[in-house]
Amino acid sequence: MAVELAPGPQVAELASRTAEFVREIVIPIEVEHGGVVRDEAVRLELQDAAKAAGVFAPHVGAEFGGHGLDMRSRAVVFEEAGYSLLGPLALNIAAPDEGNMHMLEIIATDRQKERYLRPLAAGAVRSCFAMTEPAPGAGSDPAALKTRAVRAEGGWRIDGRKWFITGADGAGFAICMARTSDQAAVSTGAAGSVSTGAAGATMFLVDADNPGMKIVRHIDTLDESLYGGHLEVAFEECFVSDDAVLGEVDGGFRYAQVRLGPARMTHCMRWLGIARRAQDIAVARAAERELFGSRLGELGMVQQMIADNEIDIAASRGLIRQACWELDQGRSAGQATSIAKTFCAEAIWRVVDRSLQICGSLGVSGDVLLSRFLREVRPFRIYDGPSEAHRWSIARRVLRHHDGQR
Amino acid sequence: MAVELAPGPQVAELASRTAEFVREIVIPIEVEHGGVVRDEAVRLELQDAAKAAGVFAPHVGAEFGGHGLDMRSRAVVFEEAGYSLLGPLALNIAAPDEGNMHMLEIIATDRQKERYLRPLAAGAVRSCFAMTEPAPGAGSDPAALKTRAVRAEGGWRIDGRKWFITGADGAGFAICMARTSDQAAVSTGAAGSVSTGAAGATMFLVDADNPGMKIVRHIDTLDESLYGGHLEVAFEECFVSDDAVLGEVDGGFRYAQVRLGPARMTHCMRWLGIARRAQDIAVARAAERELFGSRLGELGMVQQMIADNEIDIAASRGLIRQACWELDQGRSAGQATSIAKTFCAEAIWRVVDRSLQICGSLGVSGDVLLSRFLREVRPFRIYDGPSEAHRWSIARRVLRHHDGQR
Amino acid sequence: MAVELAPGPQVAELASRTAEFVREIVIPIEVEHGGVVRDEAVRLELQDAAKAAGVFAPHVGAEFGGHGLDMRSRAVVFEEAGYSLLGPLALNIAAPDEGNMHMLEIIATDRQKERYLRPLAAGAVRSCFAMTEPAPGAGSDPAALKTRAVRAEGGWRIDGRKWFITGADGAGFAICMARTSDQAAVSTGAAGSVSTGAAGATMFLVDADNPGMKIVRHIDTLDESLYGGHLEVAFEECFVSDDAVLGEVDGGFRYAQVRLGPARMTHCMRWLGIARRAQDIAVARAAERELFGSRLGELGMVQQMIADNEIDIAASRGLIRQACWELDQGRSAGQATSIAKTFCAEAIWRVVDRSLQICGSLGVSGDVLLSRFLREVRPFRIYDGPSEAHRWSIARRVLRHHDGQR
Amino acid sequence: MAVELAPGPQVAELASRTAEFVREIVIPIEVEHGGVVRDEAVRLELQDAAKAAGVFAPHVGAEFGGHGLDMRSRAVVFEEAGYSLLGPLALNIAAPDEGNMHMLEIIATDRQKERYLRPLAAGAVRSCFAMTEPAPGAGSDPAALKTRAVRAEGGWRIDGRKWFITGADGAGFAICMARTSDQAAVSTGAAGSVSTGAAGATMFLVDADNPGMKIVRHIDTLDESLYGGHLEVAFEECFVSDDAVLGEVDGGFRYAQVRLGPARMTHCMRWLGIARRAQDIAVARAAERELFGSRLGELGMVQQMIADNEIDIAASRGLIRQACWELDQGRSAGQATSIAKTFCAEAIWRVVDRSLQICGSLGVSGDVLLSRFLREVRPFRIYDGPSEAHRWSIARRVLRHHDGQR
Repeated sequence: MAVELAPGPQVAELASRTAEFVREIVIPIEVEHGGVVRDEAVRLELQDAAKAAGVFAPHVGAEFGGHGLDMRSRAVVFEEAGYSLLGPLALNIAAPDEGNMHMLEIIATDRQKERYLRPLAAGAVRSCFAMTEPAPGAGSDPAALKTRAVRAEGGWRIDGRKWFITGADGAGFAICMARTSDQAAVSTGAAGSVSTGAAGATMFLVDADNPGMKIVRHIDTLDESLYGGHLEVAFEECFVSDDAVLGEVDGGFRYAQVRLGPARMTHCMRWLGIARRAQDIAVARAAERELFGSRLGELGMVQQMIADNEIDIAASRGLIRQACWELDQGRSAGQATSIAKTFCAEAIWRVVDRSLQICGSLGVSGDVLLSRFLREVRPFRIYDGPSEAHRWSIARRVLRHHDGQR
Repeated sequence: MAVELAPGPQVAELASRTAEFVREIVIPIEVEHGGVVRDEAVRLELQDAAKAAGVFAPHVGAEFGGHGLDMRSRAVVFEEAGYSLLGPLALNIAAPDEGNMHMLEIIATDRQKERYLRPLAAGAVRSCFAMTEPAPGAGSDPAALKTRAVRAEGGWRIDGRKWFITGADGAGFAICMARTSDQAAVSTGAAGSVSTGAAGATMFLVDADNPGMKIVRHIDTLDESLYGGHLEVAFEECFVSDDAVLGEVDGGFRYAQVRLGPARMTHCMRWLGIARRAQDIAVARAAERELFGSRLGELGMVQQMIADNEIDIAASRGLIRQACWELDQGRSAGQATSIAKTFCAEAIWRVVDRSLQICGSLGVSGDVLLSRFLREVRPFRIYDGPSEAHRWSIARRVLRHHDGQR
Repeated sequence: MAVELAPGPQVAELASRTAEFVREIVIPIEVEHGGVVRDEAVRLELQDAAKAAGVFAPHVGAEFGGHGLDMRSRAVVFEEAGYSLLGPLALNIAAPDEGNMHMLEIIATDRQKERYLRPLAAGAVRSCFAMTEPAPGAGSDPAALKTRAVRAEGGWRIDGRKWFITGADGAGFAICMARTSDQAAVSTGAAGSVSTGAAGATMFLVDADNPGMKIVRHIDTLDESLYGGHLEVAFEECFVSDDAVLGEVDGGFRYAQVRLGPARMTHCMRWLGIARRAQDIAVARAAERELFGSRLGELGMVQQMIADNEIDIAASRGLIRQACWELDQGRSAGQATSIAKTFCAEAIWRVVDRSLQICGSLGVSGDVLLSRFLREVRPFRIYDGPSEAHRWSIARRVLRHHDGQR
Repeated sequence: MAVELAPGPQVAELASRTAEFVREIVIPIEVEHGGVVRDEAVRLELQDAAKAAGVFAPHVGAEFGGHGLDMRSRAVVFEEAGYSLLGPLALNIAAPDEGNMHMLEIIATDRQKERYLRPLAAGAVRSCFAMTEPAPGAGSDPAALKTRAVRAEGGWRIDGRKWFITGADGAGFAICMARTSDQAAVSTGAAGSVSTGAAGATMFLVDADNPGMKIVRHIDTLDESLYGGHLEVAFEECFVSDDAVLGEVDGGFRYAQVRLGPARMTHCMRWLGIARRAQDIAVARAAERELFGSRLGELGMVQQMIADNEIDIAASRGLIRQACWELDQGRSAGQATSIAKTFCAEAIWRVVDRSLQICGSLGVSGDVLLSRFLREVRPFRIYDGPSEAHRWSIARRVLRHHDGQR
């Protein structure tokens, strides 16, 4: 056993095949649609093509039609998929479905798996994850959860308001997080691990046709490429039966961690693909465009931006690898995922911003997709815990570690 | 004579009135339209309101219905107008009209003033400035100008392609820059002062109904609030008579400087208003939102962002003031305007970015205008000379100064 | 009355004379001593030369041998003096004497002025300001003041420990801040204005030969150029008579503000001079050194550093000017001085750091003074209130202003 | 084969033992000497202790008394050694000896190994690497090499001037790089791989008692902890016999790469140790110091600095690991080492700077070693190729790769 950074040959081959698929099949469709698809036919066309190319659903187990990749292997493959805004959708590894599959595979009962995971893994339905709430509810601080589920005959009744519920419109089902115990969880923020004991919240599987779950509105957001958009959703006297409980009652915050750490990393992997794409667009421009008698790429300030992009991409990849390795060891990896998420969200943003700057007016125009990328990656510094919440968690762990040593 | 930073009482009063007008009249309309107006009726409604409030066209001389403010006074008033995306449109001080008025007032003949400046100053028509070209034409490097005007009987025939011509759609006339002499100008970039002697380019006034001037397309851009959008425009055998020449033949690069330095500053002033607005939105949020048991504004990392916003705003204002003072002394102020433009474009961007971050998911949503502001200010680091071109000019002037001292 | 940025002709002439004096007389001595002088003979030689050049003590009133410059005029002259590490010493405007003179001129009784201010203004003695204490005493938080003065017959008895008392070794007297009332001051940090009412602390003039005041040690610090160094000082049963009280009993925190705001600005002015000097050294190197076949100054990344230096210097100057103008209007200018101090301390540091980087190994060596400058300016981000404390104050004022508006 | 980030158990054990050795034995001596040792007795005391602890010379092969660690394993152990400024000296892995041993082990003849490597590996002698020259010689651009060796009977005669020759004073021998062929090497900078074919330079082993090698002066530098300091050295009619040639004649630039890539990484490893140390000092302070009624470590801006330190440390480690892995695969790893070196040099600097800021006045004082660390790490952004030269190399490789793909 020694340090080894190359993925195994099967994973390398799958990554290479994914890269080719994205370049040949996905990017032409992405460019045609300006990166934003809202049409079910296009989604299905992309997913059929991914199935034909043998790159579909690499993260789920073979019994659900996937390749069963561990986190380290996902890091390699997802980055290639993320090279196009539509790559993750094509491979069925886009948020929030990918994270939901990850969690269902670990937590759900066999019956729940058949009913929810199997069609989700096949791309037959989509899903959403109904956790975040408008202020003063659960945002950066999950413990502020306001949505509540109370016992009703043969099941539960859920009431509350959720927002930024990605993909809710058109989803076949939602996983809804609701408070089921009044004992307050220890407050630690989206970025931290919530230690709750038995208290707190429960996750429920809610079918889309449940009359108690209602789409309130599409939220107009800076980013637009996540399929189905971000929605505000109301749960009003929403009755679900006992078998809708995902995992154990009051275990919701614990399960959320099962989802959040890995989901944080898969976001990073996908967006790292976009960072590489942005850099490639900028480098192509720098190689071709003449200015003041030289190629743009021969000007020192442009070279500095290109180099800083390379550095940011390489450092992001190293941090993702570290966090994934820890997750694969079965650790909670809270510190490593917070570090990776914080750095990646900011580094990827810088890469896209610099790439746009290199391209000048062209970068601002829709003639290349850079301004689209800029809009898509900006919220990642906020989604899944804002950078400030993660920094707070990171520092607190360091201080606790220090206190423990004394 | 001593250093004095307060504007005179009349200017202070006009600024105060402008601020009130923007807050009471303009912002409700801006919010209703999400910051982007494409409707002539709304433009006229806004401008009528500004006339009624006595704050219309503060920059042009009294004979054209304005207040004749010098650059230092514009700095105070334009910042207040810029507090809303629609404030400059309301006051008739938006780009590119404002810069065109400035230049026409200095260069145009009396007859040209009556025909073009008077209706422009009154808001009866709009205009555009057709200088920048797609690669490999005049972009960061104006000397790469490819559009050409050649002598034709009784006038000139212009041929060439322009892009990022703001407001071209619906403009009553264009000021078109075309090469009229083959002697190459010394290449120095949009950011620098082009020293050309008599050689080079000429500015032409082209009426919108000239059959040789054609709108090619609306360019889809990250920013959308400049009225009329950014367009690609073709000049094809576009004949203009001799009285269409603005200023002297071959004097175009020199006149461009008359426009560019001040226009750079008025951009800064207006966007500084948006930076202050973004900060105010963020501060209001920080004052109200509770998180982890405190007001958001009591958290150190949020305080740091608020403080850095204040610093960036104050430093921007100081640099604008310095450059405006130099311009008012009759200096070219190339160094001071490059310094101010470079700093302001980046500082204003930072302020908007931090403000959005403070607001979290709300900031990403259309429920506040921050993501709109982010989209609008990003291109300012590219328009009017990218930061890199300005830095190049700044450093070269420093080195030339050093060489001259030895 | 309108905005005017040029100093009056007398101030401009004094600044120009100061610049020449520094270049001709001071810099050769500075270079000879590597920027650090610890020899009384050299101090007197420098000050005699400044007197001969008519540039000595420009800040104190004519009755004490100076030019009586207001803050705006000091900004112009002190920057020129600060162009050498020894310029301020030569002009007798170095910390802490300069700030002490400023305060004595405003607060002291006529008798105290004769005894303490006159010889200090003449350079015949030096002084120190004994406020800051080792943890957990008065550092960033002045209200934590631990040194205490209690009534004794005919005067007061002071007990406490002070550190970072600049220039204490060899000073003729100290101004010592001690708690004289148990009613706690409102805690606001070195960066903020402490609102105390009548409660709190008192300033005492303590002669150096007072047996109750003892030098504990020279603190070994990163910076070494402030004359006399930084010391730890003990007050042990230190008796002073009633006429040692400076201003009113319990008025100490209020008087501290009289000193702190202006002192913050004069620090900025002096260090801005060093930033300009660093830039000049780097530009000279960039103009001469050949690398990879070009002058260093023609490489884009070097040009970027040169340009960023210019921007930082210009922005610093603008913020200093704003704060000085407010001080000259008789305002407390707490927000403006905090903004200026925070920005300047960081910007000046960046300028010196970049200048050293431009010079490469030469910059690291003692062959130029850049690494000395780096050592000298680093602590300025901590002294006179660390940047974090100032940012805290800035944000709190913004939030208070917001709260007040509602 | 799959991605594996944990070192093997033997390496982990050695690293742990090294950490303990540094903490127990080295740090007390370091603190006593303020981090700077100039006394041969102390060096030998430290190295004897390292031998006794079984942690001496981990990088050289067992036949020379070491542990034969590959680069990935060195990354783990050297970081622990670097936790004290004197750790590397104690383990005999300080620059320049460590890099010289690395190169000698690969290139030297058996006889040269016995004569030079064996005593060097044992700590019986020290060495230096005489490559860099004062301007306009070989600095960032090695191809500008001015020192020249010409054939003389039975050997070579070397003439030239070298500077920043670390450890030259007291070294038993120098490895001197001199031009031996007039065919110019392709110029690529210290940061890049120089492709030279057969032309160029040769490395020579020069004994310290060679009368042709003379110490000119100790260069006064910002950093002072590298044992023996940085020197200027003159080669004047310095005759060496044929067996002084290290490797092949004219192969010098190629051999330099053998040394430079790994040496770049071992610098990063060692300084990463200091970054961790600085963070630990700051965290300890943040945990203990009370300010404004809270622990310093509970203030948001302090938490941000602590978190950013963690992020910088983790990202540095990931980049070092990647580059070391590539080196261990036998690749030149030019891009990976340039990326790692550039990022680490700047990140480590930021960590030390923030740590000092957290500690406030204490950090500036000699009571903790932070200002010493600041002085030591600053030059690393210049030594071994300034960041700008590395960025230039990085960007050029990206552009060449792009050109090659088309």
